[in-house]
Amino acid sequence: MRTLYHHPLCPFSRKVRVVLAEKKLEFEAHVERYWERRDDFVALNPASEVPVLVEAGGTVLCDSTAICEYLDEVHREPPLLPADAETRAEVRRLVGWFDGHFYRDVTANLVGEKVQKRLVNGQSAPDSRLIRAGFTAIHQHLDYIGWLTERRTWLAGNHFSMADVAAAAQISCIDYVGDVPWENHPAAKDWYARVKSRPCFRPLLADHLPGVPPPRHYADLDF
Amino acid sequence: MRTLYHHPLCPFSRKVRVVLAEKKLEFEAHVERYWERRDDFVALNPASEVPVLVEAGGTVLCDSTAICEYLDEVHREPPLLPADAETRAEVRRLVGWFDGHFYRDVTANLVGEKVQKRLVNGQSAPDSRLIRAGFTAIHQHLDYIGWLTERRTWLAGNHFSMADVAAAAQISCIDYVGDVPWENHPAAKDWYARVKSRPCFRPLLADHLPGVPPPRHYADLDF
Repeated sequence: MRTLYHHPLCPFSRKVRVVLAEKKLEFEAHVERYWERRDDFVALNPASEVPVLVEAGGTVLCDSTAICEYLDEVHREPPLLPADAETRAEVRRLVGWFDGHFYRDVTANLVGEKVQKRLVNGQSAPDSRLIRAGFTAIHQHLDYIGWLTERRTWLAGNHFSMADVAAAAQISCIDYVGDVPWENHPAAKDWYARVKSRPCFRPLLADHLPGVPPPRHYADLDF
Repeated sequence: MRTLYHHPLCPFSRKVRVVLAEKKLEFEAHVERYWERRDDFVALNPASEVPVLVEAGGTVLCDSTAICEYLDEVHREPPLLPADAETRAEVRRLVGWFDGHFYRDVTANLVGEKVQKRLVNGQSAPDSRLIRAGFTAIHQHLDYIGWLTERRTWLAGNHFSMADVAAAAQISCIDYVGDVPWENHPAAKDWYARVKSRPCFRPLLADHLPGVPPPRHYADLDF
């Protein structure tokens, strides 16, 4: 059986969980407190970061993009990267956008300050300046999602792809802490409702971090 | 003719330049002052970041990883991602390591503080705390390169790959500002000497940023 080392509010772990579920691949999930740098875990990944996927044969895979590309190559159905090279480049551009820009601008500021900092450092108070920066940036990102979905069925084209997975992985973490201003972004909300209703997304909606309960609408498909 | 919008001390632009040269693909290079957010450039890439590659037919490609994967798919020879899925995952893990960790820990602190900050903000003084952090981190990263090359011919295995390109792209920027402590890291130095001697790397060694000359050893193959 394959094992996924992950953390519930790590957006990069969520990417891999959605890809595994979309491809109906079974796995054992192990919640890793990666900041504690457990010896056995550092031996798997010198960066001591989640996600790490250990395949049934013992192959160790690190880095969410490397893992997702591997899973899409080895288990093609359903494909999350399209066959055409140009559209693949567009999917990968958007994966880079959400893993990079969205994470740094929004997720690191909101989830990072409100939850991760407390988990990792004990009682550190959130930095209100960073939280404000996160709230400012999320509007631009949700506008961009709206702009894309007015032109395409899904973020990168006509099919659900790794771009939707990467975006929804980030946004679902923000939604878990109740910080997505859905009321101002109906087009992004419509897209996220479609992602949420996919069976591959259900396990994420059942997440419950001890001491950090999600808001009621988090798991609601009609939010 | 394809056009590459790049900046000489942007490591991500360097990745694409090396891949284009390795595959002997001709291109026109356009140095973009991306921080000025020129309208025509933002129309190509809403992130206003280099590199951007515009193919002869007009296809616009953004994000260095998306561009490099595209080039490797469309122009296979010589392959910079191996055929085997597990080794591809290892190449991509290392690309993520150098594009992510190395960039944030080292390049952003050293090249960012010493050169980019002055270009972008005019006369801002470098933050000595960040420069110290960069100097501390580079030792760990060069040790890791040494550790890898004691076990493998190139960083991800027996063949020169995208992992070597990503690592050398970052390190060449640090070397341009004269900050690589080569004397303490003979294994990493041996690897970099082998990268430098490849024809695909020559154009980078000819770089000369006005007002920021490289040290003499920068272009020297026997440094």
